[in-house]
Amino acid sequence: MSAKPLILNEDRYFSSNPIERKIARHLYELVKDLPLICPHGHVNPRLFAENKPFPDPVELLVIPDHYLFRMLYSQGIPLESLGIPRRDGAEVERDHRKIWQIVADHFYLFRGTPTGMWLKHEMHDVLGVTKRLTSETAMEIYDQIVETLSRPENLPRAMFERFNIEVLSTTDAATDTLEYHKKIRESGWKGRVIPAFRPDNVTDISRPDWKANVEKLAEVSGIDTSTYSGFLQALENRRQYFKEMGATSTDHGVWTPFTVELSRKEVEEIYERALRGKTTQEDARLFTGHMLMEMARMSIEDGLTMQIHPGSFRNHNQLIYERFGPDKGCDIPMATDFVHNLRPLLNKYGNDPRLTVIVFTLDESTYSRELAPLAGHYPALKLGPAWWFHDSREGMLRYRRMVTETAGFYNTVGFNDDTRAFPSIPARHDLARRVDCRYLAELVAEHVLDLDEAEEIIVDLSYNLAKRNYKL
Amino acid sequence: MSAKPLILNEDRYFSSNPIERKIARHLYELVKDLPLICPHGHVNPRLFAENKPFPDPVELLVIPDHYLFRMLYSQGIPLESLGIPRRDGAEVERDHRKIWQIVADHFYLFRGTPTGMWLKHEMHDVLGVTKRLTSETAMEIYDQIVETLSRPENLPRAMFERFNIEVLSTTDAATDTLEYHKKIRESGWKGRVIPAFRPDNVTDISRPDWKANVEKLAEVSGIDTSTYSGFLQALENRRQYFKEMGATSTDHGVWTPFTVELSRKEVEEIYERALRGKTTQEDARLFTGHMLMEMARMSIEDGLTMQIHPGSFRNHNQLIYERFGPDKGCDIPMATDFVHNLRPLLNKYGNDPRLTVIVFTLDESTYSRELAPLAGHYPALKLGPAWWFHDSREGMLRYRRMVTETAGFYNTVGFNDDTRAFPSIPARHDLARRVDCRYLAELVAEHVLDLDEAEEIIVDLSYNLAKRNYKL
Amino acid sequence: MSAKPLILNEDRYFSSNPIERKIARHLYELVKDLPLICPHGHVNPRLFAENKPFPDPVELLVIPDHYLFRMLYSQGIPLESLGIPRRDGAEVERDHRKIWQIVADHFYLFRGTPTGMWLKHEMHDVLGVTKRLTSETAMEIYDQIVETLSRPENLPRAMFERFNIEVLSTTDAATDTLEYHKKIRESGWKGRVIPAFRPDNVTDISRPDWKANVEKLAEVSGIDTSTYSGFLQALENRRQYFKEMGATSTDHGVWTPFTVELSRKEVEEIYERALRGKTTQEDARLFTGHMLMEMARMSIEDGLTMQIHPGSFRNHNQLIYERFGPDKGCDIPMATDFVHNLRPLLNKYGNDPRLTVIVFTLDESTYSRELAPLAGHYPALKLGPAWWFHDSREGMLRYRRMVTETAGFYNTVGFNDDTRAFPSIPARHDLARRVDCRYLAELVAEHVLDLDEAEEIIVDLSYNLAKRNYKL
Repeated sequence: MSAKPLILNEDRYFSSNPIERKIARHLYELVKDLPLICPHGHVNPRLFAENKPFPDPVELLVIPDHYLFRMLYSQGIPLESLGIPRRDGAEVERDHRKIWQIVADHFYLFRGTPTGMWLKHEMHDVLGVTKRLTSETAMEIYDQIVETLSRPENLPRAMFERFNIEVLSTTDAATDTLEYHKKIRESGWKGRVIPAFRPDNVTDISRPDWKANVEKLAEVSGIDTSTYSGFLQALENRRQYFKEMGATSTDHGVWTPFTVELSRKEVEEIYERALRGKTTQEDARLFTGHMLMEMARMSIEDGLTMQIHPGSFRNHNQLIYERFGPDKGCDIPMATDFVHNLRPLLNKYGNDPRLTVIVFTLDESTYSRELAPLAGHYPALKLGPAWWFHDSREGMLRYRRMVTETAGFYNTVGFNDDTRAFPSIPARHDLARRVDCRYLAELVAEHVLDLDEAEEIIVDLSYNLAKRNYKL
Repeated sequence: MSAKPLILNEDRYFSSNPIERKIARHLYELVKDLPLICPHGHVNPRLFAENKPFPDPVELLVIPDHYLFRMLYSQGIPLESLGIPRRDGAEVERDHRKIWQIVADHFYLFRGTPTGMWLKHEMHDVLGVTKRLTSETAMEIYDQIVETLSRPENLPRAMFERFNIEVLSTTDAATDTLEYHKKIRESGWKGRVIPAFRPDNVTDISRPDWKANVEKLAEVSGIDTSTYSGFLQALENRRQYFKEMGATSTDHGVWTPFTVELSRKEVEEIYERALRGKTTQEDARLFTGHMLMEMARMSIEDGLTMQIHPGSFRNHNQLIYERFGPDKGCDIPMATDFVHNLRPLLNKYGNDPRLTVIVFTLDESTYSRELAPLAGHYPALKLGPAWWFHDSREGMLRYRRMVTETAGFYNTVGFNDDTRAFPSIPARHDLARRVDCRYLAELVAEHVLDLDEAEEIIVDLSYNLAKRNYKL
Repeated sequence: MSAKPLILNEDRYFSSNPIERKIARHLYELVKDLPLICPHGHVNPRLFAENKPFPDPVELLVIPDHYLFRMLYSQGIPLESLGIPRRDGAEVERDHRKIWQIVADHFYLFRGTPTGMWLKHEMHDVLGVTKRLTSETAMEIYDQIVETLSRPENLPRAMFERFNIEVLSTTDAATDTLEYHKKIRESGWKGRVIPAFRPDNVTDISRPDWKANVEKLAEVSGIDTSTYSGFLQALENRRQYFKEMGATSTDHGVWTPFTVELSRKEVEEIYERALRGKTTQEDARLFTGHMLMEMARMSIEDGLTMQIHPGSFRNHNQLIYERFGPDKGCDIPMATDFVHNLRPLLNKYGNDPRLTVIVFTLDESTYSRELAPLAGHYPALKLGPAWWFHDSREGMLRYRRMVTETAGFYNTVGFNDDTRAFPSIPARHDLARRVDCRYLAELVAEHVLDLDEAEEIIVDLSYNLAKRNYKL
């Protein structure tokens, strides 16, 4: 029996209602070839600094993608058998053909999931695969991908250009020296890869490595961080450095969006206790909440767009965390309150149109209840796109349905791919553009919008809003 | 270039699926001309008492409508530039042409929003506008609306009749003398404009003006309110007076739906402390919770339908509140618990079919989880329509989808326009009727309902249920 | 005028979009005649032990179905008038014709509800009714159903066979002697009716009857329960007995999914306090949370699939509870947190693929926020189907939309009818299969899935997943 072909239908993700589908196609034509704006993501800049070929599909698609191995793990497949490195250096599977065979044997698990949609797109469009991945075709496809990846047109920089990426932001610790960003600049390559300033490792005093981080911060900034005021200056210094290296935004991954304004005395006392290793959970909560306020203040001063990503219970599975470390698919969303938590920040800075604060959520019940009403009022507040688990066909559609009526289109900021998986970038943007076309097509077909309005909006959602809100 | 026409498509808001659309059209024919029942709203009765012409589109559509200027504010447009009066009397924009130009320049912000849908309907059907509002057409449309408003057929009372309003309820403080309602009655005009009894300003002891309000209550009722029992009698007196003036309902805007039964001694002590200005936040919470119970008791006695509107964080933006006052688009919904909070009230009075308590929510996650199961059990409890931010095309559809299966159609109470913006009333009812037609058309097309059942239901949703549950 | 016919359209619950409908029909053909797997329900085993005819439609459809009389009660119809027995033995309506007439007079209340859909299916397919139930046809239909029920092909065992039930699990207290299950076995009848182990009445120390229950547990197990360790042994003994009687699962109806691991000393002290009648609410919370952990441990040992049904506020209406007892339609869902509550259990046992824990929820906001991410990671965790109020056309569709993208299809466990109402079983499975066909048809029509993938999935959802996850 011959293997089934891998087909990407050109109408995928549009409604099958012919009236809507025709409009969706028309709108999609307007945006499918627009450059990709990637203002928030986790691609390693080293990729472009070194520009080495990707070795094989497992290194490219499996090991770096916790979306993918999380699902296999949920069905009882040990992470060791998928080649995920252990912290203790214990043996894990090194035969990438064996790993790829496991993925192929269980590829049915991804039916109906965004990971499945992205992978099919990547295999077809980026890697030239023409057959469906099954137990039978696994090795043939493995060989074919290895061959494809060895070609010069599939080096990271060549892919970057082929993907039509206008700008790609990485996410980098406040203490990062941005060496790979420097190397990219020095290389003369024209791809625009910029950093984003993420100070979580120095603003969360509950981290075991916090003290080491503030010492590192002192080192990279050349500013003494043994006092709170030195700490603030060091942060300002690093923000300035990141800006010089091209950054236009900061990012804050916090447990909750709690914000609070402490007196100078209070915050200094917490900072000193933290240096002495004597803080409480409540200290940590207050300090992080206070630092979000400080970051907003600095953003007004230096113009960096501020992003807040709250509400993820990181490393929920202690065993996996101990054995494999963070970012292994065990971060679980939590119910999140924005109304009370963000109020101090919004009351102090939210009326200032110089500030742009982009908020993300994993708690969809807040879209219509909290976030759209807040963004539909405060000049500084904008809503980030459907995040993480919700960066999906249904998830993005729910986002538009629950956000648009109260916040409109223009208090949202376009799409973020938010990915570590570089070759999935075109697939992710394409899915987002298609879902937006689908949503707008419905609005046109139901006479909520006129077609010319939808034509403008789709370009804004696919390109202009991200560029404008991230000042790119 | 000639301006684009403003068109209201006759199939708007119906599904574009031809099978469903045909059924929706059929159902809509049955209800589009039914009289409007407006059992809950905020139109100023003075409008009909004085019956003066509306001066211009800004006075009519912009300044009284926080839905509208909230969105402009969210994009950095100062409220002063929109003519919103400041509390301190500072200068604000007085050139209404300039304000109208700003609205027109930013009208794209309302794409996909209910405000946009209502405004287009009002301009087209009520004000005779035939071109789309753009930067170019703004002044021409301004002039045309001014001319239209000057005609006798557009005086408030004439509009009321033309809109086919059978009854319109205003919302009035317990301390209100209802002077405009009296004037309307005395004028001989036959339009039915009735008050609703809203005692929030005397049941919330945390308000700075509370003491002044209970003194006002004593004055208007002629009953001494220096004791709790006098206070209760004064409330009963005012309810009786409102009933005489046509009221059939009460309304309670509360922080949460918390209810509690205090002992007589406990509540008297809180009341005394309140008179002495010595209450705590917990006192206020208990007092409001207790007063909801008292109001339910009085409703059983006097037959007034009781409405509870909880879950809005009023005046979230302190700066705007201080500068412009309440109702300026800064009320933000909060997560709300009905299951525990309403239990004391429902356990004491919820089994009494003489009582009708209509509950509203801004927290959609409670529709299917809490409200539909409660309304599908307790005889006294009914669900108000999709409220505020959810009074929208998608919002109403989600409401029906999440409520109907558990509560049925007959534990809901039809539509409320809940508006301050008088000329938007027909647009709001029309949108609601269209969304209900769309929902029912889907149920018929998918063989959940037979067509004759849907024909009955659409009339109930558009007319009978509101009339019955508000005893109109 | 002749009565309208009762028609079950063969395309019911499919989308009316012709492209999707055609695919849905095709998928439905593959599963409509598959045997029914009923791994969780509340049918009384006595029915099959005694195999007596059902007397009349009220005894069959009304009195045992709190879904049905709850809705009538919500519209002011006293439960006494529907023949619901009172605890105090007071008179209730005994004329079943009168009761049936009330149901018929108010049958319009069930429009758009699952109860309405199931009843129409039962009447048409199981009871041979050909006219719509109305005030006029009530008595004629009553007589016809009585006649139908008197025929041998409508005895409980004959129905069981006709319904094509492969296996039916009841739910039984830990203290139950399973006498009716024994009688069924001894009768030689081949219908597979098995128990499920539900120890709530001995794991919830806050119950007034708790002490009596642990004494009963000692009696049925022959193991002294006056110590905690005896209690554990007695539970293990009963689990073993249930297994011998065919059980493959346990079930835990808990207030919240709180889990905790107490030290042996702590739990023994609570147990002793409980025996002395001296426990606090906090003791009860800790004990139940600890017992869930113990149950997971035992499940790993004996292989019983573990089900957790949290988040229902049982007997919310005190008056109805006192007058009529539990399960009278007054259980109301509450907001539920799985992320923090289940963590101790998942951290201790969730990585063990020998364990299957199936979690249900009444709080839909947790589908995409908590449950799908947890099930998409932990090997032991699976998601039960849309539960109770959400076992409905829209409810199941929302479930698939919010769960599939993150958890996939294969971390869900197929359908449960969860019913006391035996004759509604085919209707419930048919509705679920149709909704799944509809959902999959959309995915095929929108090119998310290929048709051959959907063909496999629909069989898995309708049959294989339940069989596999309940080890049937």
